[in-house]
Amino acid sequence: MTTPSRIEADYIIETAFDPLAAAEAMAGEQSSGTFVAIPGETPELKARSAARIEALEPLESVEAPSLPGAGRPKLGDATVRRARVTLSWPLDNVGPSLPNLMATVAGNLFELKQFSGLRLIDIRLPQAFGDAYPGPKFSVAGTRRLAGVEGRPLIGTIVKPSVGFGPQETAALVSQLCDAGIDFIKDDELQSDGPHCRFDARVRAVMEVINDHAERTGKKVMFAFNLTGEIDQMRWRHDLVLEQGGTCVMASLNSVGLVGMIELCRFTQLPVHAHRNGWGYLSRAPMLGWSYVAWQKIWRLAGADHMHVNGLANKFSEADDSVIASARECLTPMFPDKPCIAMPVFSSGQSAKQAPGTFAALGSPDLIFAAGGGIMAHPDGPAAGVASLREAWDAAIARVPLADYARDHAALARALEAYAG
Amino acid sequence: MTTPSRIEADYIIETAFDPLAAAEAMAGEQSSGTFVAIPGETPELKARSAARIEALEPLESVEAPSLPGAGRPKLGDATVRRARVTLSWPLDNVGPSLPNLMATVAGNLFELKQFSGLRLIDIRLPQAFGDAYPGPKFSVAGTRRLAGVEGRPLIGTIVKPSVGFGPQETAALVSQLCDAGIDFIKDDELQSDGPHCRFDARVRAVMEVINDHAERTGKKVMFAFNLTGEIDQMRWRHDLVLEQGGTCVMASLNSVGLVGMIELCRFTQLPVHAHRNGWGYLSRAPMLGWSYVAWQKIWRLAGADHMHVNGLANKFSEADDSVIASARECLTPMFPDKPCIAMPVFSSGQSAKQAPGTFAALGSPDLIFAAGGGIMAHPDGPAAGVASLREAWDAAIARVPLADYARDHAALARALEAYAG
Repeated sequence: MTTPSRIEADYIIETAFDPLAAAEAMAGEQSSGTFVAIPGETPELKARSAARIEALEPLESVEAPSLPGAGRPKLGDATVRRARVTLSWPLDNVGPSLPNLMATVAGNLFELKQFSGLRLIDIRLPQAFGDAYPGPKFSVAGTRRLAGVEGRPLIGTIVKPSVGFGPQETAALVSQLCDAGIDFIKDDELQSDGPHCRFDARVRAVMEVINDHAERTGKKVMFAFNLTGEIDQMRWRHDLVLEQGGTCVMASLNSVGLVGMIELCRFTQLPVHAHRNGWGYLSRAPMLGWSYVAWQKIWRLAGADHMHVNGLANKFSEADDSVIASARECLTPMFPDKPCIAMPVFSSGQSAKQAPGTFAALGSPDLIFAAGGGIMAHPDGPAAGVASLREAWDAAIARVPLADYARDHAALARALEAYAG
Repeated sequence: MTTPSRIEADYIIETAFDPLAAAEAMAGEQSSGTFVAIPGETPELKARSAARIEALEPLESVEAPSLPGAGRPKLGDATVRRARVTLSWPLDNVGPSLPNLMATVAGNLFELKQFSGLRLIDIRLPQAFGDAYPGPKFSVAGTRRLAGVEGRPLIGTIVKPSVGFGPQETAALVSQLCDAGIDFIKDDELQSDGPHCRFDARVRAVMEVINDHAERTGKKVMFAFNLTGEIDQMRWRHDLVLEQGGTCVMASLNSVGLVGMIELCRFTQLPVHAHRNGWGYLSRAPMLGWSYVAWQKIWRLAGADHMHVNGLANKFSEADDSVIASARECLTPMFPDKPCIAMPVFSSGQSAKQAPGTFAALGSPDLIFAAGGGIMAHPDGPAAGVASLREAWDAAIARVPLADYARDHAALARALEAYAG
């Protein structure tokens, strides 16, 4: 782990201009420059405040520009080339402020005419950022303690249908899932405080079930209540969950935004389950936007305890290697004395069959493994669905092939048949 | 203007599947569905909560998918087709909550495997949203009153160098600009409270200059102080600006995020100048992300008084017709009794020469026209730079060609030479 003295950001750029000249334009735009030389821009000021090109590694040339609207040199070579560029800024350009970091590393540069592609790949922050922000208050250890699960992933699920259930129907489903042996349940991101399923009524109905189940069995299921809303609503909802004995709150990162999330995470006394819905619009064009590696650092430092990373063989468009890179990064320390580890949350089309691949690629059981249909649509019902995931993870951690393990584990055997497709 | 009873959103989709089937998957994912049929999903529940396809208009076929990772049908035709789709949701799925609207209209759908392209084009909201949010508190009329400018655009500029000036250097520049006759000045988005230019010291130094100038001349220049920061910092900074006699605050939308902006706008007693830096990563891939037409509605309803729209012949990659569509939309009412008009802010490589085209396309002088180099790099200095923009707008509104008007307007004449390139 390197903790730099300057703010550093890595980009992949694509340009028809000289890549170095294009990178210089980018560095100027994001620090002391404008489109013409101006009176106040002295050499001393530039020395103090200018962004610096730390590295520029040429990559491949491409046949056509990835994005429209880019310029071309008027004369000479107009080959479209890619390069990996590292820029750095003095910490004192912005100070250790996450909101102001955003405009610096991810502000007005994606639209620069020099580029037919520009993607933020990674960021590295000075220690002052680690000192200024709380990071996750619960992280892996706190989540495990509250959920009572050690040495294996938390097996989780999502309340489905996403929208439509009222508080009592949600509580009835939760009761079924508690009986099925689930560790973790989350609200769907579409449901926070809809008129048919008010947050207040849902928390009370669900926590009655969870508390009853905990009294009877000693196991308190962790439920991530989606409190996404305005600041005061989120505070009030958090306090209600805490008062009712709940152990987790959930918020949608792209709905709440950075400043709201910082506020929630400073305030929270419960783990914050961070949902990334909308991530596709930030990332799906390969030569634009954000890599998850860069993006998740912002939210972990702000205080997210759990970060969604999609799942292997998911129902979305993301490739498996990208999913694993995201999950590994969530488990990689950010600062020596403040690791900011977030528990990666695997979900989307997950069932027993993805456990071995997930464990093999990640090398850690510190994750939440969430399945919707993979539990509820198990041919022998939700209890068998949960059992099949527990068995699959036991097999994965013991490095026993699922097919072998399934010989004397019926729930797993039935899951492998049912989700073979 | 239509005010629908359901939440409506228009998308351009691109898919190798039957577009109707793909749109159905999208509607399911964003309301009551998951990837298999599940027990609780009754016909009654679907009738109450399911998203509906309101319209589907086939568009062109394309040779290759725009984005990677999309699926293809296993058998039969795999032509990649585009279509314009309108989905609608019952208001009661989420209630009139902007943060929860986000997950519904712009959540987990950009990554769906059915699509090699998906872009949110527009949204239309029920009246309940208009009742639940403040909208801009100042808008055009309030901004004009505070700035003392009627019948023409506010002529504005940006503090440059973006980063590097301290409070006294900033104040000295402001003094020069006040003398030059400017109406509006904004901080650069890179500068909020950096250690070399603390917000507190900058506000005090700048407002001393502006207040002095106002006492001498009767004209109080509007300065948009960039208060981007955490919630309590923004509150405190707003109060300082107000106390010092300032008339505007600025915040970066993508740095603060939705919930922080809602909080700021509910709290503010000053116009909120909303900066869109980072917009490129949301929009530059043509078949992904957000159109500005959809996006700006969210922020206007939240309360942004001024919205950045780029400028004609800008230094970025955006085409002129897109800039004009954005600006027109900011001036189009959202609800009959709550128009939420935001003043469009033109900037980026602007000088006198863009005035006629801007006025012709927009048909309104209700805008802020901001130039950096277009003022500061005028060959005869900033006063001539401001004069050239005033003259250019006088000509544009009078529909006199600039070249004609320049014959007896020296500042404009020199500007047309200097910025001819």
